[in-house]
This record gives sequence, structure tokens and C-alpha cells, in this order.
Amino acid sequence: MSEKTTIYDIAKALNITAATVSRALNNNPKISQATKKLVLETAAKMNYKQNKLALALKSGRSNTVGVIVPYIDRNFFSSIIRGIEEELYPLGYHVIICQTHEEEGTEIDNINALLNAQVDGILMSVSKHTTQLDHFDHVLKKGVPLVFFDRKKDIKGVSTVTIDDFEGGYTATKHLIEQGCKRIAHLSGDRSLEIYKHRYEGYKKALEDFGLKVNKDHVVQCKNDIAAGHKAIDKFMKLDHRPDAIFSSSDFLALGAIQQLKKNGIKIPEEFCVVGFSNEPFTKFMELSISSVDQSPVLMGNTAAKVFLEQVKDSNVKIEKKVVLSPKLKIRKSSSRS
Amino acid sequence: MSEKTTIYDIAKALNITAATVSRALNNNPKISQATKKLVLETAAKMNYKQNKLALALKSGRSNTVGVIVPYIDRNFFSSIIRGIEEELYPLGYHVIICQTHEEEGTEIDNINALLNAQVDGILMSVSKHTTQLDHFDHVLKKGVPLVFFDRKKDIKGVSTVTIDDFEGGYTATKHLIEQGCKRIAHLSGDRSLEIYKHRYEGYKKALEDFGLKVNKDHVVQCKNDIAAGHKAIDKFMKLDHRPDAIFSSSDFLALGAIQQLKKNGIKIPEEFCVVGFSNEPFTKFMELSISSVDQSPVLMGNTAAKVFLEQVKDSNVKIEKKVVLSPKLKIRKSSSRS
Repeated sequence: MSEKTTIYDIAKALNITAATVSRALNNNPKISQATKKLVLETAAKMNYKQNKLALALKSGRSNTVGVIVPYIDRNFFSSIIRGIEEELYPLGYHVIICQTHEEEGTEIDNINALLNAQVDGILMSVSKHTTQLDHFDHVLKKGVPLVFFDRKKDIKGVSTVTIDDFEGGYTATKHLIEQGCKRIAHLSGDRSLEIYKHRYEGYKKALEDFGLKVNKDHVVQCKNDIAAGHKAIDKFMKLDHRPDAIFSSSDFLALGAIQQLKKNGIKIPEEFCVVGFSNEPFTKFMELSISSVDQSPVLMGNTAAKVFLEQVKDSNVKIEKKVVLSPKLKIRKSSSRS
Repeated sequence: MSEKTTIYDIAKALNITAATVSRALNNNPKISQATKKLVLETAAKMNYKQNKLALALKSGRSNTVGVIVPYIDRNFFSSIIRGIEEELYPLGYHVIICQTHEEEGTEIDNINALLNAQVDGILMSVSKHTTQLDHFDHVLKKGVPLVFFDRKKDIKGVSTVTIDDFEGGYTATKHLIEQGCKRIAHLSGDRSLEIYKHRYEGYKKALEDFGLKVNKDHVVQCKNDIAAGHKAIDKFMKLDHRPDAIFSSSDFLALGAIQQLKKNGIKIPEEFCVVGFSNEPFTKFMELSISSVDQSPVLMGNTAAKVFLEQVKDSNVKIEKKVVLSPKLKIRKSSSRS
């Protein structure tokens, strides 16, 4: 058989209409199981390759949206994805997801895989190690809408949905000051990333506004994991001037710090207060629950999806929208002295 | 311009080779940024639509594998995905992920989206509410390899990678008996799902082997969340014959149970022991760490990927492989009396 078998060939062979063949191939519920079986078997026998792309190009859409995140298993990102799905599923869109593990190379591969899958749009959070912008240009040149959420690059024509990380850092630090803490340390992620830079700036500004000074020994830039939290406390313990509180830009760091503080016999929150960032579920589950800055990830996902929908609604209009959401501090045991 | 612009038309317009055009369109690092820019701009001007599918059909592969899981944010599933990626990335495969939220309809949509994206294979865990099998047949009829992990349906020609849930339930229950527990309750997920049925059977067998009886009041079938764990304890508290231990088929249920036991002033593990299932990270983070059955999800992902690779290696050979992995009990504070 020729490779160019069409649905018309199959229709002819079975003496049914091409529309029925097409519906059967697309698993349309209106077509009986018996017919589907017959069509699929005949299509296989005739070596038919369904060109969904042709259909997609004809209608101009595949009804599939690609989402790229650094890690699918961080509650923050999985909640954003839920928010995107909430908006897009009812409209008949499918959502396919890729993770970068913070690798630029994987991010480029993911983008190519999604473009090859003919997605109608890409909603993504940029990997920590991304320095190039070519792959984003590639998306835009192909006319595929691109929306950044949380972690963004400033690119003309790309809409972004972020939270006000400065405000998050400011609110958390102000809260610690109000609890009576005087020597507030900051555990920060890589500040070449805007989100961490802004959280740090919010921290600094709150200290300034309340007449406190930033002690360089109290600001530690580290990885986002529990072990790094342990290490930071070990470092603080050796100082003459020890901190009495931590605003951490990550919940995992905050958890590590709390574990190590306890090992050192330091009472939380009486002697030391801790606030994390992201509101990971475990912060709430702990017996000593951890205060944390909530980033409204489901709302962020909803918003990113809405921004995308506005863009596909009228492809003749270029929309560049910058949405900034407000974070919310969740005060829990790790910083409640009252 | 015609819709049928080819790379040859672009090559001619720019006076370069078609191979260079193709490489530029595929973002090949060997092509200079200037050339890429020129090619992309010209392609856009000439209304060129890249038919990746044609390339994929020519080589017979898209180098993309689709993974479907109920929830991406359960550590168990995200770890399996990591395991799949570990095996497939080095071989040049991309992994795209979909989640079903346990909905059969979404599962069918996901499968169609992945087939439309021309994936080379689908590796998946079946949704809780899936009763139909047509969509799986659809995959097989299209000649796309299908591998089930953890949650499977018995379908001819489909390989499966599972863990021995019976053994997991048996080992956890035996451990509780060895801690001196006499009235071991079981919180179970929906037992129409094989995994929960087998965990329950392992529990029953361990009780029998040690001469203990199953008390119907002590076996509760419920949702996999914290609230259901609270409710189960409320129910147990009203019994004359209260249990003194729980083997829970979910860590979230176990956490809810522990929270409610504490509210009732019951000491863990002295008066009551608890073992969960899945080894979610929070079970380890808790001050009162929770014993749990680890399912080696990364290994499960590695294995599922290897099974897929065997299948694509030689498409003329039909391989149906059933791999069963052994679970490992992680004993922590919630059940350590010694």
C-alpha cells in the first residue's frame, strides 16, 4: 500500500463516508464501537498515517497548550498548572506539561518538543540557568503566544504574570520586626534570578524603614534545599553576633534552618522566629507549623491562562500585559510570639 | 504567498542550501544567530509552516514520549517521572506530561492530545475512575507502545511495571504486630482499584498468619486526604473496641489520623502506632516522623522507560513484560516502640 492512503481511500474500501472515517479515527463517541474497530483495522491494514497536523493547520489550532516549569513536584508550580487547567479545560484545551530541572538545554528541548507538537501557546516559568533568549524568539517568530509566569525574562511582546516579590519580602520582614526580632537574617536563593533579588530588596527596605541595619554576615545566598538550611545555621552559630530570626526565600531552607536550630536547643518562636516563602503544604502540616508567604499559585495559573486566551482571541492584535499579584503572609507557629 | 512554501523556496530566496534552512528552523547550534534570524524572518514572510510531522513520519519517530499520571504533585508520581526522564533524556527523547485528576474523560483527552503530538510511546498510570478500555485500544491500534506503571489494566500486549502491593500491606502490618499492636485498623483507598485491594489483602493475610482477626469496624474505605483521616479517628473513638494501630494505604490519611489522635490526647507510638504508604517527603519532615511503605518510584520510572525502549528497539517483535518491584518499609517514630 502507498504511504499516502487518505481517509477517502478507507471510506471507499468500507463503503462509508469520509466523515465517519474521520470521526472514528478521532474516537468520536457518536461512532459505534464496531465501526471504530472496523475503521481502525482497515486503516492499519492500508498503512494509513493520520495527519493531525494537517487538521490542526486547517483550523489553525491544535487545542493543546504547553506548560513548562522548573519542577512539577514543587507545590507552587503544580498549583499554577492546576490553575491553568481550571481555565482551559472547560474551553476544550488540553494541557501538556514539561519540566526543565532548571537546565537551559532541557528548556530549549522542551520548547522544541512543544512546537513540534503544534501547541497553540506556551505558558512557562523560566529556568534558573537560562541566559539565552533565542529559543523564546523562536516561539514568537512562529507566531505562537508565549506567556511567562513567576520567573520571566523581559522580552518585547511577551506577557507576564508575576507576584510582587518585593512586597512579599517586605511583609515577611516587617512581621518579624513586629514580633520583636532585632537581628533578622535572610536566606536567599540565587539573586541573579529576579524573584530572589526582589525578595532580598523587600527585606532590606523593611529593615531600613524600621531603623535596622543589614548585617552582611546575616545574608546567605544558598541552594533551595534542607541541607543548605542546616549549613546556614551552622554558620550563624559561629558568629559573635547571632541572628534572632530568619526570613527565608524558600520553605525548604526554612525547614532545614528550623531542624538545625532545634538541634542547637534554640526555642522557636520564643528565642528565634522563622518565616519561609511559597507556602508549601508541609509548612502547614508540621507540629511546629512554619509561617510562609503564599504566592496564590492557583490564581497565578488562572491569570496566565486568561492572558493567553486574550491573545488567541484576536491574533491580529498584539497584547503585552504585565500582571502583578499580591502575596499573602500566612502567620503560623514558627513566628507567632503573641 | 502559497501555503505550500517549502524549505527549498526559502533556500532559493536566500541563496543558501536547504540543509542550512532546515538546521536554522530546527535551532541547530551549528548555525549562526544571524542566519537563524534571517531564515526565520524569511520563513515568516513567506508564510512557511514547518511540517515536523512529515519529518517525524519519515524517520518514524518524534523522539517524544508522553507520560500520563493522575496527579503531578504527588511525590510518588513526580518521582516516577524523574525516573523516566533519567533514562530517556540521555537518549535524546523529550518527555511531555499530562495529568488526569483521576477523571476518565481527561485521560481520554490526554491520550488523544499525545497521539496528536505524535509521541513515540505512552507511559501511564491509569486513572481511578477509568472503566472503558477503548482509548487504550486506540493507542495500540495506532502502533504506539503503551506501558502501564503502578495502576494498570490487564490488556493483551501492554507491558506493566508495578510494585507488590500485597507485600507492602503484609510487611507494614507484620511490623505493627511486632511492635505489640493487637487491634490493627486499616484505612484503605477505593478497593475497586487493584493497588488498594492488594494492600488490604496483604493486611488481612498478616493478621491471619499471626492469629489475629479482621474486625470489620476497623477497616474503613475512604478518600486519600487529611480530612478523611480525621473522620476515621472520630469513628474509631466511638467504638467499644478501639484499635491500637493503623496501617493506612495513604500517607495523607495517616497524617490526618495522627493529627486527630493527638487531639484526643493519645500518645504515639506508645499507645497507638501508625504506618502510611507511599513515603511522601512530609512523612520524613515531621517532628513525629511517619513510618511509610516506600514504592521505589524512581526505580519504577527507570524500569518503565527501559521496558518502553525494549519495545521500540524492534517494532517487529511484540513484547509483553510484567515487572513487579518490591516495596520497602521505612520505619520511623510513628511506629517505633523499641
